[in-house]
Amino acid sequence: MPVSPASPLSPAPVSVLGLGAMGKALATAFLTGGLPTTVWNRTPGKAEPLLALGATAAGDVTAAVTASELVVVCLLDYDSVHETLDPVAAKLAGRTLVNLTNGTPEQAREMAAWADAHGIVYVDGGIMAIPPGIGTEQAFLLYSGSREAFDACTPALELLGAPRFVGTDPGLAALQDIALLSGMYGMFAGVFHALALVGTERIPAEEFAPVLQQWITGMATAIPHYAQQIESGDYTTGVVSNIAMQAAAFPNLLSTAESQGLSPELLAPLQQLLSRRVAEGHGHEDVTGIVELLRKK
Amino acid sequence: MPVSPASPLSPAPVSVLGLGAMGKALATAFLTGGLPTTVWNRTPGKAEPLLALGATAAGDVTAAVTASELVVVCLLDYDSVHETLDPVAAKLAGRTLVNLTNGTPEQAREMAAWADAHGIVYVDGGIMAIPPGIGTEQAFLLYSGSREAFDACTPALELLGAPRFVGTDPGLAALQDIALLSGMYGMFAGVFHALALVGTERIPAEEFAPVLQQWITGMATAIPHYAQQIESGDYTTGVVSNIAMQAAAFPNLLSTAESQGLSPELLAPLQQLLSRRVAEGHGHEDVTGIVELLRKK
Repeated sequence: MPVSPASPLSPAPVSVLGLGAMGKALATAFLTGGLPTTVWNRTPGKAEPLLALGATAAGDVTAAVTASELVVVCLLDYDSVHETLDPVAAKLAGRTLVNLTNGTPEQAREMAAWADAHGIVYVDGGIMAIPPGIGTEQAFLLYSGSREAFDACTPALELLGAPRFVGTDPGLAALQDIALLSGMYGMFAGVFHALALVGTERIPAEEFAPVLQQWITGMATAIPHYAQQIESGDYTTGVVSNIAMQAAAFPNLLSTAESQGLSPELLAPLQQLLSRRVAEGHGHEDVTGIVELLRKK
Repeated sequence: MPVSPASPLSPAPVSVLGLGAMGKALATAFLTGGLPTTVWNRTPGKAEPLLALGATAAGDVTAAVTASELVVVCLLDYDSVHETLDPVAAKLAGRTLVNLTNGTPEQAREMAAWADAHGIVYVDGGIMAIPPGIGTEQAFLLYSGSREAFDACTPALELLGAPRFVGTDPGLAALQDIALLSGMYGMFAGVFHALALVGTERIPAEEFAPVLQQWITGMATAIPHYAQQIESGDYTTGVVSNIAMQAAAFPNLLSTAESQGLSPELLAPLQQLLSRRVAEGHGHEDVTGIVELLRKK
């Protein structure tokens, strides 16, 4: 059981504000890890299952934030965070606020500035897991902001999932969180299209799905190579199938969807980017060059 | 070295028509596997590197197709296949034609009907590899059409990559090939968006890319579950994060791209489908329900 370095005999307590599905999972992981855990939720009744695990229910926000040096917040959105914490900013002064609420890099930076103005130590976080994954080996969490506070809370944060500090700019965890989610949604868009396509014929899901998963996993090994190309802006090194060849074959994907009675709308934007990039004279380069078209001039 | 069951003492010869990057890789795999290999290409000169490996160059298409019982074709498109094979259909009669040319299920079915009309045994195939992957453990190939011919050629086809027979309907290999490619392109669209997004800040590619790859690979484990939902049409079983919650959070992805100076066009169609599905009263269901919107009424 991890213990606070400041108190080797008893683990440092933690407060969890927000007991939606994710907040409950976070509090459960702290409790299971042996941390004295105080919980609070705007609407009452959410704490009950946690009380059985040993949680203390705070009567109000002030009681919640003053119960622990480490205050973890996971609310619906940043408006809720301000609404909840603005009235108790003075009580939070000197404590560490770890904000795991979903938001944008801008929102995280604004919240960090607010915390700074009130003498609150701020760490912003992005949870790369669904609630049932919290506390398991599958979960990892991105953090940015105060490195010192992150290091001090690491024993507690490790109970949630592998902690990964990505920079002192408090917006970086949210940026990478959103980048990962964007990648995931692109993948699922392709997967849903693929599953709908084979669903137009009698192809059993249990036969095709493992092949699709294996294929996606195999193709994802190209990500580091593509990342190098995009970072360097050199789209001509290590090209196996150039963008002209890919743009020429891509219409087969759209027309097959159409002739099987499916809308190709999830893939259509990529076709446009491929064609534009070739038309602009980059046909011999790699497909990664389309990122140049995503960047607004 | 695999040998033809019909001739245990010497391996059965194979002819390869089309010596683009992929055709050359196929011929190389057959030659490396010890098969007597005859090669042909419309424009001459492409065979030279294969001759050094022991290939026989055919002077014309007739010579190429009569040199072997197994004729493998990998041309630019189906028009090229017809242009090349129509004049020699009578010579092909009784032989096995394995067509690995990229195309749609409709094209494959039309070609199978053409082959049938000429007494040619037909197997259609889709290559799930890039040319340098041919003959390696990463490669697999989908086949459909004549099961008997597929079984007889398996020792030769195994030299190209793991062979996977997906049905006697000759269009099924092309359909699954296109479904896999569609899934891959969706994944890469998301990945390119993600890499462009982190590229707007100073986040080194070599730090972020492995995390993105690990994340995509981890999320891809949900594919079999999603496939079950889509096959059954039951989008209410095993829902962790319902589509209403996902639709509510999705605008953060688009607005973050915008505020970082990136076009969100690759992700925008998914947002529309999520919103439509919720608006139509399915907010409590899983995100997979969007496939209902892809299907044209």
